[in-house]
Amino acid sequence: MQHFADVLAAGVRRCGNPVLVGLDPRVGSLPEGLLAAESRNDPVAVAAAFQMFCCGVIDAVDARVSVVKPQAAFFEQYGPAGMSALAAVIRYARSKNLLVILDGKRNDIGTTAEAYAEAYLGQDSVWGADALTVSPYLGDDSLTPFVHRATKTGAGIFVLVKTSNPGGGAFQDYAGAEGPLYRRVASHVEQLARDTIAACGYGAVGAVVGATYPEQLAELRSAMPHTWLLIPGFGAQGGSAQDVAAGFDQEGLGAIVNNSRGIIFAHDREPYRSRYGAARWQEAVEAATRDMIDQLAADTPAGKLRPF
Amino acid sequence: MQHFADVLAAGVRRCGNPVLVGLDPRVGSLPEGLLAAESRNDPVAVAAAFQMFCCGVIDAVDARVSVVKPQAAFFEQYGPAGMSALAAVIRYARSKNLLVILDGKRNDIGTTAEAYAEAYLGQDSVWGADALTVSPYLGDDSLTPFVHRATKTGAGIFVLVKTSNPGGGAFQDYAGAEGPLYRRVASHVEQLARDTIAACGYGAVGAVVGATYPEQLAELRSAMPHTWLLIPGFGAQGGSAQDVAAGFDQEGLGAIVNNSRGIIFAHDREPYRSRYGAARWQEAVEAATRDMIDQLAADTPAGKLRPF
Repeated sequence: MQHFADVLAAGVRRCGNPVLVGLDPRVGSLPEGLLAAESRNDPVAVAAAFQMFCCGVIDAVDARVSVVKPQAAFFEQYGPAGMSALAAVIRYARSKNLLVILDGKRNDIGTTAEAYAEAYLGQDSVWGADALTVSPYLGDDSLTPFVHRATKTGAGIFVLVKTSNPGGGAFQDYAGAEGPLYRRVASHVEQLARDTIAACGYGAVGAVVGATYPEQLAELRSAMPHTWLLIPGFGAQGGSAQDVAAGFDQEGLGAIVNNSRGIIFAHDREPYRSRYGAARWQEAVEAATRDMIDQLAADTPAGKLRPF
Repeated sequence: MQHFADVLAAGVRRCGNPVLVGLDPRVGSLPEGLLAAESRNDPVAVAAAFQMFCCGVIDAVDARVSVVKPQAAFFEQYGPAGMSALAAVIRYARSKNLLVILDGKRNDIGTTAEAYAEAYLGQDSVWGADALTVSPYLGDDSLTPFVHRATKTGAGIFVLVKTSNPGGGAFQDYAGAEGPLYRRVASHVEQLARDTIAACGYGAVGAVVGATYPEQLAELRSAMPHTWLLIPGFGAQGGSAQDVAAGFDQEGLGAIVNNSRGIIFAHDREPYRSRYGAARWQEAVEAATRDMIDQLAADTPAGKLRPF
């Protein structure tokens, strides 16, 4: 059985970049023509448009990147129809040999956490994701069922450690004997990563660490040498290539950098709007992806990945 | 528009008890006859059985209790079909005038948190729950969209503060200047409750505090005088009526006590198994509910609620 960390490392190396495309469909930002104005409040129509849009994004990026991240919330917002669309998008991404990290920030205790793990992790699960984002508030034992399931199915998880939002520090930075809380969470996650280590040197348990706190990113990269980092906050939230540079190891591995709005809605911002417009939105997606790849290659150790 | 806290108080008073019935369907525990053995791995068949079972539980308890709590994980475990069943169960409970607290422990940041709030909160939302459980790890600003939505729609949220699992303390008890982290979370939640206060004296923002930590329950009741407490951990997890007594105010209000397995699978444990057996599982559900009501009335301030 393949190991999630190795498959991720191989994908990043094959594509020569650590770009993670976030699939965050929103009604107000869809390219014209995908959803009729009078259908904006019809969950079935919106779900169908989301599916078409996300599959279109996948078509535009699958030759360049190795991993995508659908955001569950935007599909859940449209009820059972939205969830069916989510399942279809995951299947489509998998059929294109993309790794799928489902961003659900799930967790619970005991057998309920097991249910989430069984639901989402692994190719044979009903949702079929390769990895899931997980919240740590419920404690160390709440992570165990996910780690077991990931180990058993060749899947992975990414535990929230330091999130990218302005208020993330309210509880994550709560200072105790080991420093801020996020450091204690990080230390447990690193232990889980070491417990599940693969040939590439990283484990099946990763961490979410925001691009908007570059100092903490550097600190956490060094405190978690066996932990894949999923870095949100690049682009629309203000994080730059320089800001995420400290997230990589010396070979340019160890981190994937998410961009959602900045890529999938590129048709709606310059310079892509003038160049492509809404009709050629997939070309805008591809161009924005290429530009992000170039930025990361220029200003971070991910440049070493490039197949020059 | 009605206020969630007042509707909850009125429901608890009308029924004369604070019992919250947890709808946690599991394939291995369903009464015989609801699911054919050869269909246990068919998500569509399981989802249909879950729907029939949960609606049967609702029929057995709706004359005695005012609020139910479907656990999202067990429905998500069966994919889009499971989610359709969840939607149907919520609608059915609402049609029986039960309040529905969806246990999803969701959260995210910014507009993603807004999407979850819009998805789940309020009778006009696509899922139509009256309240949702929410995780606080992402910070104070991650709770704001839920509070706004709850205020706008007459819905509520319950924020995880001190959970009932053995490992809950790993991060929740992390000690800093204000004491353990859960105390800091509690202080923020109480502020949100005060900001959303209703005529009954409680706010639209509640807290999850486990029955398995009775001392902390007493501490938190006193630290959060305007906060409805949702208390899990009664019954199967080891919490007794005495353990939850400190969760109530002097009138017997302010707390609802969850029981999932102990009620819905009563047909599978004594004394109900001998008395009713699997064929009369709904009578077992009703009897277990009645017994829990009696235990809470005998050993907690909830006894004052009884319509003697």
